[in-house]
Amino acid sequence: MPRSKPPPAALLATPDDVEAQFYEALQQADLDKLMAVGSDDDEVACVHPGGPRVQGHAAIRASFESIFANGALALQPQGVKRVLALGCAVHHVNEHISVTRAEGTRSAWVLATNAYLKTAQGWRMAAHHASPGTVQEIPTVGDAPSTLH
Amino acid sequence: MPRSKPPPAALLATPDDVEAQFYEALQQADLDKLMAVGSDDDEVACVHPGGPRVQGHAAIRASFESIFANGALALQPQGVKRVLALGCAVHHVNEHISVTRAEGTRSAWVLATNAYLKTAQGWRMAAHHASPGTVQEIPTVGDAPSTLH
Repeated sequence: MPRSKPPPAALLATPDDVEAQFYEALQQADLDKLMAVGSDDDEVACVHPGGPRVQGHAAIRASFESIFANGALALQPQGVKRVLALGCAVHHVNEHISVTRAEGTRSAWVLATNAYLKTAQGWRMAAHHASPGTVQEIPTVGDAPSTLH
Repeated sequence: MPRSKPPPAALLATPDDVEAQFYEALQQADLDKLMAVGSDDDEVACVHPGGPRVQGHAAIRASFESIFANGALALQPQGVKRVLALGCAVHHVNEHISVTRAEGTRSAWVLATNAYLKTAQGWRMAAHHASPGTVQEIPTVGDAPSTLH
């Protein structure tokens, strides 16, 4: 997907900036904004909750176009855990999503793993892998402090 | 998890080395070998197919101990796609898993996203996110060459 006018590097100066733009794009159903966060690498991939792996820019664009055909996503990233290295970051995100239908509003959790790489153009997303979580609880099994000693 | 004797760096000199050791450990139900591939970062996390996010070394170890209680995993990584950057790699893997029961052997695909970071001790895995795929087909929707032009 050629970009005639790439966004200024300062806009995507950190993995958190990329993540913020990714979730804003989902909340606004803004396909161009969404695709601008992706790495140029041909091997970028995305797994939607319960779906197949979607590999490459054209297929990823088509998959989100299909999702956005139903409107924007009422989705809030929460409880982000970050593994940060030089030029790379992996974020573990609990996505809280609400869906409003005639019968009312329902919400659920989605588990997402987002990987970011530092490129010559700034930070970009290289992978987004999302799985269905539970309806009620934040679906994390963690180390309780008492188990560490 | 203290490691009195970390493996020589040469053994995990590349992301592919880490990935090979990870899948060997699953195939051998070798918990120590498995845990040795993980990054020391407290925020490492793992999502098993259909499961919650498992965060931190003690919880990850307990989750694999529970899996290995049922024996080794007949699991083959296939079709690995790599996004490689300086000090970081993201691998998209199709895991082909066979399960043998009294009624016969069944197989299925699992979609995994594996993230690797270069640390002072060599390459380590920082995240493993796996989702159930389909039973029959490799669950990838890709860019067909004809769609690129």
